Amino acid sequence: MAQEKLNIIPFGGLGEIGKNMMALAYGSDIMIIDAGLMFPNEEMFGVDFLIPDISYLLAKKENIKGMIITHGHEDHIGALPYILPQLDCPVYTAEFTGKLLSSGFKQRRMKDKSKLNIVSHGDKIRLGSFTVEFFPVCHSIPDTTGLIIDTPLGIIVHSGDFKIDYTPIIDKPTDLSRLAQLGGKGVLLLLSDSTYVELSGYTPSEKVVSDVLGNIIAGASGRVIITTFASLISRVQQVIDAAAKHNRRVFITGRSMKEIGRVALESGYLVAPQGIFCQSDELRYLAHNQIVILATGSQGEPTSALVRIANGDHDQVQIVPGDTVVISATPIPGNEALINKTIDSLFRQGAYVVYDKLAQIHVHGHGSREELKLLLTLVKPKFFIPIHGEYRHLSLHAKLAEDLGMAKDNAFVLQDGDILELGREKGEIVGKTPLKDIYVVGSRTYALDSAVFRDRKQLSQDGVVVVVTVIDVKEGKLVRKPDILSRGFVDTKDGQRLIKQSQEVVVAGLKNAPKCLSDPDAVDAKVKTLLANFFYKRTHRHPIIIPITVEA
Amino acid sequence: MAQEKLNIIPFGGLGEIGKNMMALAYGSDIMIIDAGLMFPNEEMFGVDFLIPDISYLLAKKENIKGMIITHGHEDHIGALPYILPQLDCPVYTAEFTGKLLSSGFKQRRMKDKSKLNIVSHGDKIRLGSFTVEFFPVCHSIPDTTGLIIDTPLGIIVHSGDFKIDYTPIIDKPTDLSRLAQLGGKGVLLLLSDSTYVELSGYTPSEKVVSDVLGNIIAGASGRVIITTFASLISRVQQVIDAAAKHNRRVFITGRSMKEIGRVALESGYLVAPQGIFCQSDELRYLAHNQIVILATGSQGEPTSALVRIANGDHDQVQIVPGDTVVISATPIPGNEALINKTIDSLFRQGAYVVYDKLAQIHVHGHGSREELKLLLTLVKPKFFIPIHGEYRHLSLHAKLAEDLGMAKDNAFVLQDGDILELGREKGEIVGKTPLKDIYVVGSRTYALDSAVFRDRKQLSQDGVVVVVTVIDVKEGKLVRKPDILSRGFVDTKDGQRLIKQSQEVVVAGLKNAPKCLSDPDAVDAKVKTLLANFFYKRTHRHPIIIPITVEA
Repeated sequence: MAQEKLNIIPFGGLGEIGKNMMALAYGSDIMIIDAGLMFPNEEMFGVDFLIPDISYLLAKKENIKGMIITHGHEDHIGALPYILPQLDCPVYTAEFTGKLLSSGFKQRRMKDKSKLNIVSHGDKIRLGSFTVEFFPVCHSIPDTTGLIIDTPLGIIVHSGDFKIDYTPIIDKPTDLSRLAQLGGKGVLLLLSDSTYVELSGYTPSEKVVSDVLGNIIAGASGRVIITTFASLISRVQQVIDAAAKHNRRVFITGRSMKEIGRVALESGYLVAPQGIFCQSDELRYLAHNQIVILATGSQGEPTSALVRIANGDHDQVQIVPGDTVVISATPIPGNEALINKTIDSLFRQGAYVVYDKLAQIHVHGHGSREELKLLLTLVKPKFFIPIHGEYRHLSLHAKLAEDLGMAKDNAFVLQDGDILELGREKGEIVGKTPLKDIYVVGSRTYALDSAVFRDRKQLSQDGVVVVVTVIDVKEGKLVRKPDILSRGFVDTKDGQRLIKQSQEVVVAGLKNAPKCLSDPDAVDAKVKTLLANFFYKRTHRHPIIIPITVEA
Repeated sequence: MAQEKLNIIPFGGLGEIGKNMMALAYGSDIMIIDAGLMFPNEEMFGVDFLIPDISYLLAKKENIKGMIITHGHEDHIGALPYILPQLDCPVYTAEFTGKLLSSGFKQRRMKDKSKLNIVSHGDKIRLGSFTVEFFPVCHSIPDTTGLIIDTPLGIIVHSGDFKIDYTPIIDKPTDLSRLAQLGGKGVLLLLSDSTYVELSGYTPSEKVVSDVLGNIIAGASGRVIITTFASLISRVQQVIDAAAKHNRRVFITGRSMKEIGRVALESGYLVAPQGIFCQSDELRYLAHNQIVILATGSQGEPTSALVRIANGDHDQVQIVPGDTVVISATPIPGNEALINKTIDSLFRQGAYVVYDKLAQIHVHGHGSREELKLLLTLVKPKFFIPIHGEYRHLSLHAKLAEDLGMAKDNAFVLQDGDILELGREKGEIVGKTPLKDIYVVGSRTYALDSAVFRDRKQLSQDGVVVVVTVIDVKEGKLVRKPDILSRGFVDTKDGQRLIKQSQEVVVAGLKNAPKCLSDPDAVDAKVKTLLANFFYKRTHRHPIIIPITVEA
C-alpha cells in the first residue's frame, strides 16, 4: 500500500544536505522542517545568498499541514520571508525563535505574522498524520528544538542542531532520558546533525568559556572589547556576568547585538543587573578597567562594530594601547581572511587580541563524535539519515552508525532533492526532484544561468573591452577609426597606449578583409578575433570583447 | 659612525612579513635573503601571484654582494626568475634547492644558471662585510638552511623556515649544539620563523606520520591513493617505504610529483627499492591490495591528478569502491573549499577518504610555541626580529620573547618596507622604502592601479552594460534606437525584456532632454544616469554602464 510509506526529501541544493529545509510526507500529508538560506560558493559571483527551490512543494501546496522551525539561525529561518508567502502554511516554533521571526517580519512589513504558532518544549502538535513533540536540545541560540515525530509507521527523532551540554548557561540540558525512553520503545528513524562528525571526543561545555572570559577580564588592566555572534545569548550572558563580577559596566555596539539583546532582555532570556549597561558618553569618564564593550563583528563583517573599531572608523570607540580584544567565536569557513585582517589591524593599533587559537574563548554549538555516538546509542533507531553536513560529513556519520552496529543498508546518505521512500522494513531512494539554484541579491530572487557566472568570472579576471566600429555598408568602408574603451583590463597608463595600438590593429585588419565591411555581423566577428589575438599576444589575457558595429 | 650600523629591510608587501625577501646592509655592502612569490588576496582579481618590489635594491645594484636562498619553496624562490635578471648577482644555496632552481631555469631557458653557487651545510661564504655560515634546519623540503651571519657588529642568526625534529626522515636534525655554542659567545640578533606561534606545544616529528601511513596501508583491502606536496620528499620517502614493507608497488601520477621525484631520486635525496615503481598498464593486472598511487592534488588544484581522479577525468585511475584516499597535507589557507569539494567527490564515488581532521597523516613544517621558546633560549640574542608571519604572528612572537625576559625595546615588529637601523646598543626604524604591488599574470608582470581591481570587483558582481547611441549633432536628434548589450548582468531570458525596456528608457529620457543631443559627452552622462537608475530600480544592482555616443 502506497500510504504505508514515508517520503523524506531534503531540499537546499548547496553544500550542507538536509540542513536548510526538509519535507516529510505520508499519504497526502506533508510537513516541512526549517526554511533556511544558504551561502553562495566562490563561483557564484555577486550573490548574497540562496534559498531552497520549493517547486516540488508548491505543486502539492494544499497537502502541506505546517512548517516547523527548529531554531533561529539564518540557515534555518532565513528563507522564510521568501517562502512563506508562497506556501502560506502555519509555522510552529519555540518562543525565542518566534520572537526573532516576529521582529524580522515586522522589519519587512510582512503580514504573515498570524501564521506563527508558539510551541513549548514538551508540547505536541498535530500535523495531519504526524504528531510532533518539541524537545529541548542545547545549541548556540536559545530554545533550540529537536523533534519527536509520531507517524503511522513509527517514531522519527530529528536531532535539530544539537550538542550535549550537561552544564549549559541558559538553556536546559538536552533531554537524554526522554530519548532513552523512546529508544526503549523503539524508534523507526533518526535524523541527526553531522556538522562536527570530524571532531573526536566531546564538545566542551559552554561553562568552560565562563572561566576563561572571567580570567581575561580579571587580568586586563584596560578595556576589554568582546565580540561574539549576536544570537549567542548565553555568551552575551557570560560576558555580562563576568563584567558584573569584576565591577565593569557594559557598552553594546553594533546593530544586531543591540536588537537581539533587546529582544532577549525583554523576554527574559538574558538577565542583566540594574545599571550594568552604559552609554557612549560614559565611556569617556569611566576608568578603562571599568569597561567591557560588547561588539558585533566576530566574522570580520566589513560594516560591523569591531571592524570599524579595527579600522579607526568607529564613532565611539578608538583602540588605545592597553585594550584587550576577545574574539569569542570561530571563523565560519570562508571568513578566515576577513577575521585575520581584523586581528592584524587591532594588533597594529596596539591592542592585544585573544582569539580561538590562543585560548578557549569559544566552544562549538554542535556535538562531536562521542556525542553523536551517544545519541545513536540512546535512540537505537532502526534506520538512520545523517543530516546537516556536506557529503563527506554524512558519509562519515553513516560509517559511525555502522561501526555501532547498524546494518549498512539502513543508513542513508542522501543528496538534496533525493526522495527516500521508507517502509517499516526497508528504505530506498525512489526518485529525485530537480532543484534549481535560487539566488538572492539585494532582497530580490533570481534564477541565473551559468553563462552569467562564467561571464562574471572572466570579467573579474581580465575585464572588458568595447569596440564601436562605424561602417558605410554601401561603400563597404570604415567611416572612421573605431572607438575602443576598456574597464578592469589594464592600468590606465599602459592602457592608453595599448588601446591606441589596438585601433590601428582593427583599421589594418579590416583593410585586409574588405569583403566583410558590407556586413555588420562579419565586422563584429572579425574585430573580435583581431583584438582577442592582439591583446593575448601583448598582455597574455583574455578580456571579454564586445564589438558593436554601427551603420552610418 | 654611519657604518657602525646595520640596516635590516623586509620586502614583500603582502601578508607575511620578511618571508619572501629581506636585505641586510652594512656600510655599502648589501646581502639578500630569499626571493619568493606571494599569493594574491581575495581583492586582487585575476592575479596569479605577486613578486617583491625591488626598486630599493636596483638603486644600489652595484653594492649587492649576493643572494642566499634558504630553501626551495615557491614563497622563497618563486620570484627569482623575475628578479635575478635585474639584480644580476651571485646566488648561494644548498644542493637540493640548487637542483630545483636549475631545473626551473632550464624550463624557462634562463641563462643565469652560472650565477648559482652550491654551498654545503657548515660551509662559510664571504659577502663583503658579511660572512655567512649555512646550518641545517628541519622543514618540509630537503636541505633547508638557517644562517649564521658574522657582521662587524656581531652575530646574526636567521632561523629560516624551521622546526625542531629529533627524528626527521631524511634531513639532519636542527643543529642545536651549534646554536647553543653561539648563544654562549653572544648573539646580536635573532630573526626567527613565526608561522606557528599560535600553536601551543611542539610540532610532532615526521616520524609519527610513518606509523599512521603504515597502519592505513596495512589495513586497506583495496588500493591506497596518497596525495601530498610534491616537494615534501620525506613524505614521498615514507610512502615508498610503507608500500615496500606491505608488498605494494607505487604508481606516480601528476607532473610536479614526477619531476621533483626524478630530481630527488637522481640526487639521492629519495631512495627507492629496485622495481617498486610500476607503470600505468600494470595497474590493470596488479591486485588492488598491491597498489599504492602517489598523486599530486593535496591542495585541490583543479588540474592535479587527484582532482581529475575525483571528477572521473583521469586517464589511468578511476575510483572503485574499496579505494582508500589519503590526503597527507593540511589546507593552505584559502584552499579549504577546493579540498573539501575534492573529498566530497571522492566519497560520492565510493572511496573512503582519510584527511587531516580524521588522523595524523600530516605534520607541519614549522615549529610551535615551545620550539620557538627553545630557539630564543638557546640563542639568547640581544635583539629579536620575528619574521615569517602576518602582523598578529609577529606581535605574538615578540610578546613570547618578552615573556622570556627580553627587553620590550629590543624586539622589533616590522612591516614590509621598514628600514630598521641596528647598532650595538639599540635599534630603531629610521625610514620606510615605498613598495608597490607587482602582479604576475601568465608570466608577465604588471603594476595595476586600484581602479582596475575596483572595476573588476564591480564587474564580477553586477556585470557590464554597453549602450551605443547614434546622434545627429547638427539636427540635435537621436538617429535610431540605441544598441544595448550586456554581459554578466542578468539571465538571458529576463535580460532580453529588460534590455528592450531600457532602450525605451533611453529614448524617452533623451526626448525630455533635447539640449544634450548636440553634445556627445552630455549624451553619455545622461544615458549613464538614466540606465543606472532604471537598472537599480528594476534589479537592485549596479552594473558598470559604458555609454558610447557616435555622431552620425
